Parts: sequence; structure tokens; C-alpha cells
Amino acid sequence: MKILILGAAGMVGRKLAERLAKDGRLGGIPIARAILHDIVMPVAPAGAPFSCECLASDFSLQGGAEKLVSSRPDVIFHLAAIVSGEAEADFEKGYRINLDGTRHLFDAVRRIGDGYNPRVVFTSSIAVFGAPFPEAIGDEFFNTPLTSYGTQKTIGELLLADYTRKGFFDGIGIRLPTICVRPGLPNKAASGFFSNICREPLAGKEAVLPVSEDVMHWHASPRAAVGFLIHAATIDGAKVGPRRNLTMPGLACTVGEQIEALRRIGGEKVVARIRRERDPIIEKIVAGWPRRFEAKRAVALGFKAEKTFDDILKVHIEDELGGVVS
Amino acid sequence: MKILILGAAGMVGRKLAERLAKDGRLGGIPIARAILHDIVMPVAPAGAPFSCECLASDFSLQGGAEKLVSSRPDVIFHLAAIVSGEAEADFEKGYRINLDGTRHLFDAVRRIGDGYNPRVVFTSSIAVFGAPFPEAIGDEFFNTPLTSYGTQKTIGELLLADYTRKGFFDGIGIRLPTICVRPGLPNKAASGFFSNICREPLAGKEAVLPVSEDVMHWHASPRAAVGFLIHAATIDGAKVGPRRNLTMPGLACTVGEQIEALRRIGGEKVVARIRRERDPIIEKIVAGWPRRFEAKRAVALGFKAEKTFDDILKVHIEDELGGVVS
Repeated sequence: MKILILGAAGMVGRKLAERLAKDGRLGGIPIARAILHDIVMPVAPAGAPFSCECLASDFSLQGGAEKLVSSRPDVIFHLAAIVSGEAEADFEKGYRINLDGTRHLFDAVRRIGDGYNPRVVFTSSIAVFGAPFPEAIGDEFFNTPLTSYGTQKTIGELLLADYTRKGFFDGIGIRLPTICVRPGLPNKAASGFFSNICREPLAGKEAVLPVSEDVMHWHASPRAAVGFLIHAATIDGAKVGPRRNLTMPGLACTVGEQIEALRRIGGEKVVARIRRERDPIIEKIVAGWPRRFEAKRAVALGFKAEKTFDDILKVHIEDELGGVVS
Repeated sequence: MKILILGAAGMVGRKLAERLAKDGRLGGIPIARAILHDIVMPVAPAGAPFSCECLASDFSLQGGAEKLVSSRPDVIFHLAAIVSGEAEADFEKGYRINLDGTRHLFDAVRRIGDGYNPRVVFTSSIAVFGAPFPEAIGDEFFNTPLTSYGTQKTIGELLLADYTRKGFFDGIGIRLPTICVRPGLPNKAASGFFSNICREPLAGKEAVLPVSEDVMHWHASPRAAVGFLIHAATIDGAKVGPRRNLTMPGLACTVGEQIEALRRIGGEKVVARIRRERDPIIEKIVAGWPRRFEAKRAVALGFKAEKTFDDILKVHIEDELGGVVS
């Protein structure tokens, strides 16, 4: 089996490659080769029992996607995108990478023809939804994105469904929850604080909480996200039917519940490292975000997320901190 | 006021131009000039009290859209599209005209910048919805098109909303019901029979009914469609809010109810001209179509459709038959 990962230098792409290297197989079939691609050079996972080819290029440029799929990978993970903030700041770049890039990839697969019908796993986002929302967003709620990024992801979902219907490939789109706890340095994304208030205190550092404790949001761990990708790559397409885009399960919890979990896991000394400093700009952005989903279809199809925020913290401590809280 | 109509040679485009010629104004403001465009040369409406420029070109080609908007029309009606059957048969052409063409138009407007902010009215379709449906489709039901045409129209809606949000223009997308009674010759569209069984018998000719009388569908007259376009061109955008795409009101009725109306209006001799000849292929296609909508937002915003099928038939007899039933 041959695998292609687009966006392999990103946090989720890297963890996916590491998981595949550890498993050595996908859906029970040994992996013979992986192509890892990104706009910056990805790093091959250590100890992979298959050959890894690492490539850096801009596949939104003409001909770029053709080269990537010419070896006819059996599974294509399309995680490549520029993020919400950048797509909003640079309109043309957002559409070029997130829309044209995705379409070039899909067309490159379509043009091979000749019975080639890979599984294409596309990471979409809960940004395809825009406020006002019902209290819990069901599987049939409409997509009215309020950002260019969300618009581009929705268009990717629509193309994926149509190309799949036409038999050009076998696509599954998955809408990821906010990934928490994100490893690495604090970033300036408006959603960053959900992770910052866990990761930093657990590592002995201070973090700022810019919103009130009753803000509710929809989370899954990086490990769960990788699990979604693996499951989407191996699931029976016939069971999914023509509606190929799925809201992934997650955990709805308030910031207050996050902090309580942090207290149970790390104790008072850890939660004392959270400094409350309200930021009206972030509060306003967050007020427009979805809080809770009823991801019934994905759950019925076997996608699994954490059930408690304690579990999300435990995943972080195991996977990133070697089991040790500072 | 300057007007641009794309798709001006089509049935609805032609009727829109005729109505504007008759009114001489739009939203109370006199029309100084109209540009009528299509892939084939449109005909200027008779007796227009404003100058008409008729153009034929393919605006999906590079630079085509720029020329059309360079005179900075105040209102752009974008009705141009290749139809469902052709978009399904010729995948690349469908995406080139219906997606790339629309995007080129929107980008041409965006690139003018400089405070230029025209009202753009985009005709979408109930093909943005795909079965299975609830009994009546509400304003928040999701878009899962089951055709490439429906996919392309949904993408057009998303782009319209995002470009409007970014302030590049002031867009309104309207999802037209099936237009009934369509004037002209019977065509081979799967939906053709809804009009054929009215138009042909009223003109003294036989028509074939290929489905059972309990098939329900969603209709509005050509006159109502033109009314939607005019209202969409002049409505206050602030009242519409960020959700810029609206399901138009219409009339849900069964084929049996259509025939009863035809009997009331034309008598037994007219309905006797309908020949029942079931076509399993058409029956299967029609089974996947929406039947009824709850177009609450559009009704609240003042869009108006016929309330009975008798009214739809009367519009046809007045507008197409000079008031005379054969």
C-alpha cells in the first residue's frame, strides 16, 4: 500500500506519519511507501518500516498536484491548508491554496482515470458553520461559514462529494473539532487559549485566560484527530453513502470544566498558573463559534473521541510530557 | 442606473429585460443603460426607454468578465449557466462555465475596488438540495447536491456570501423553484413534463405525463421569477443579513392538482389531451427531487409567488396566449 500525506509538516500531519510508522500498516495492509509533502520540507518519522519520500513544493501551482499523485497512492490524506487567520488576511492566497490547491489535487486524481480510485481523506473544519447556531448542531444543519477559510473548506467538501459521486475517487471529508491540547509554543490564534491554559501550566509556566469560564467549546485531542484520519482512510465507503462529509465527534466542555479537570490532574499549583485577563476582541470572536455538536452519523460509523476533559489532559501528558506534570 | 444581465438570451433573462423595458426604472431609479450578454446574441427588448447594448461572448474565458463589468453597472443579474443535464454530461464544461465563470465575474467586480459595490443578483437553484429530504425543507436545511450542477450552484452561493461579507459587492442569491409554465417547445429536461402537460393542451396539442398524479413539486411562474429578480435587486441588504442565499417561495402541488386546475381553467377538452405513459427513468429521477419548502425568510423579506396553480395557469394564458385557450 502506498500513502500520500499533503500537509505532512503540520502538527496533525506529523503525528499521523508517526502513527503510521508505528503501525506499519493501514486497514490491515502493510504500508510499502509513504510520500510526505508540504510547503516546507517534512521530516520522515523515525523507525518507519516503509520507505518515506519527503517533498516540499506548492501544489496549488499548475502541474504540482499531478506529480504528487503520479505514483497512484492508494490513500491520499489531504491536510494541506493555510489557516483561518491567514486566509482572512490574504484573500487571494487563501483561495489559491485552499480552493485551487484542493481542486488541482482532485482534478489530478480524476485525470489519471484508468480505474484509479484512491481513498481521499480531506480534513475540513467546524468553520463550515456560522452563527447563529442551535444549542447543539446536528448532522443536517446548513453551512453558512463566516470566514473565507470556512468558505474554502465548505467548497472542498462539495467538490469531494461530487467527485466521489462521479467515481473519480472515493472521498471522505472529516470536520475536526478544535484540537486540544495543541503541543508546541503558544500561538496567537484566537482559539489558542483553550490549549494554552492546559499546556503551559502543566509545563510549569503561566498562561492567560482571555474569556469567562462559562465559554463552551468542542474539543478532541491530537491523538483522537489521528484516529479519525486512520478510521476515515479505512472505513467502508458504502456505509457512508453519498453524504461524504462528517462532523467528527468531540467533547463539549466549558473553560470552567477544563480548569476543574486540570485541578484534578495537576492540583492547585497547576491551576494557580492561569492568569485571568479578559480580552474583548477574543471574547467577541469566540462568541461566534459553535459550542456543541450532535455528531450522530460519525459516532454510528465508529469514529471515537475522548469522553472527558480529564482524558484529553491524560493524552497530552502521555504523548507530550512523558507522563510527567511539572 | 446601469444594469448588466448575464444570461440575457435565456427564457428568464429575456423576460427580465422585457419587464425592465416596460418599467423603465428599477427601485424607483430610471434606467439609463442596459448591457445584455449571453453566449449567443441576446435580443434587445422592444420599446426600451434606455439604451441597450447586446453582447455575445464566453465570459468564463480569461478577461471576458472584466470587459463586462468595466462600465461599473449598478446592478448585475447573473443568470448565466449551463443546465443540469449538460453539466452532468460534460463535467469539465459544467465546472468551467458554472464555477469558473461565476468566480471570474465575482473577481472582476472585486478587482475594480475603488468603492465599487454593485448589487449582484445570482440565480441559484433548488438543486443545491439532495434527497433524502424532510417533508418540507426549511431555511436551515443543509446543501447536499446530488448533481454537478447543484454542486456548482452551491459553490456560487458560498462565494457570493463570502465576497459580500468582505465588501467586494452586495450579493443576493435566489434559489428558483421549477419554473412553470415554461413557454416554448417541449424540451427533454426530466422536469419538462410539469410544463408540457399544461402548455401543450392549452394550445390544442397532446402532451405526455410520464409519472403518477401523486408526484408533488415546487413551482413558480416565469412572471414570479422575474418578480423575485427585481425584488432581489432592490431589497435592503441590511435586512437580509449575512445569510445571503434565499430559497424563493413557490407553490407545492401534485400533478393531480395541476390537472384539476387545468380542468377548471380549460375544461374537459383540454385535460383530455394529456396522455398517461409512465417512464420509469423519469419517475426515478423525480423521486430524488424536493417537493416542498418552507421559504419563511424569503416570504418575510417580501418575495411573492403564486398561491394556487390556477394563478400559475392564468399567468401563462395572459403572458403567452394573449388570454385565449384553444
